[in-house]
Amino acid sequence: MAEVGGETTPDAFEVVDLKDWPLPMDDEPGVPAAGEYEFEHTRAWSRKIAAAEAFVFVTPQYNWGYPAALKNALDHLYREWAGKPALIVTYGGHGGDRCAEQLRQVCEGLHMTPIIAGPGLRLPRTRIEANTGEIDPAGEFAAHRDDLRQSLGALVAARRGT
Amino acid sequence: MAEVGGETTPDAFEVVDLKDWPLPMDDEPGVPAAGEYEFEHTRAWSRKIAAAEAFVFVTPQYNWGYPAALKNALDHLYREWAGKPALIVTYGGHGGDRCAEQLRQVCEGLHMTPIIAGPGLRLPRTRIEANTGEIDPAGEFAAHRDDLRQSLGALVAARRGT
Repeated sequence: MAEVGGETTPDAFEVVDLKDWPLPMDDEPGVPAAGEYEFEHTRAWSRKIAAAEAFVFVTPQYNWGYPAALKNALDHLYREWAGKPALIVTYGGHGGDRCAEQLRQVCEGLHMTPIIAGPGLRLPRTRIEANTGEIDPAGEFAAHRDDLRQSLGALVAARRGT
Repeated sequence: MAEVGGETTPDAFEVVDLKDWPLPMDDEPGVPAAGEYEFEHTRAWSRKIAAAEAFVFVTPQYNWGYPAALKNALDHLYREWAGKPALIVTYGGHGGDRCAEQLRQVCEGLHMTPIIAGPGLRLPRTRIEANTGEIDPAGEFAAHRDDLRQSLGALVAARRGT
């Protein structure tokens, strides 16, 4: 992250899509807090998360909670998350506020410093239920750009400990 | 369930271990609320849950939340859960109260009638962290038998709508 003209702007971020990280559920025999992983996919995931200084979780709300894939990715590790700020951005047909609050607790359980971004983004339910793929998330998020920018500023400040 | 000597006792229950139900994450192309499933494993899961009149969720608390495997099993279906009572029994090294509260919200999102059993059972953390398999869940739960019996009575009453 860097300051540009007084504004805080990320200059090194990476999109990590869980689709690209198929971590089998409950596969590791050890306790993640011990940090000893049997499988190479877990070790690779550990290196990826250990290398990051902060996180932005962009997640749907499913049935008033967080999705299994996100919880699975979180639960695979432990120390790699600790001491880092995390911004929680949620969306869904009913918004994402319950998911955000639940995820905040999980982030605290993993010793992150979580910040919830704004109210969860409410997507058009009729189009979700029609399941035609006609929702443009980038377009929906564009309307919330200023809120998200402000939240990102809070994340950067949290990382600096200010 | 049946009444025996004035007590409510389950006379037809089945243990469903999610280990025996490997449901891939986010595999179904459709929205679960539509009830149209592409894969036989989802259709089998649908039949299993549709056939039940009530549920007892016995779940660990991981990182102050519910485990991915449980959320994945819940999210695979929708109407099959609706209108049924659910008892939530949690346990973990820090107990399970945060998990129970989060899971209660999810059950409500799926239109169940959730009841939280108790405080979450606190298992010995040193033995969890040692990961030697020395914890005897049945033994730990035995000490809470009266509480659990009372909660089961509440579940039966909820099923009857009393």
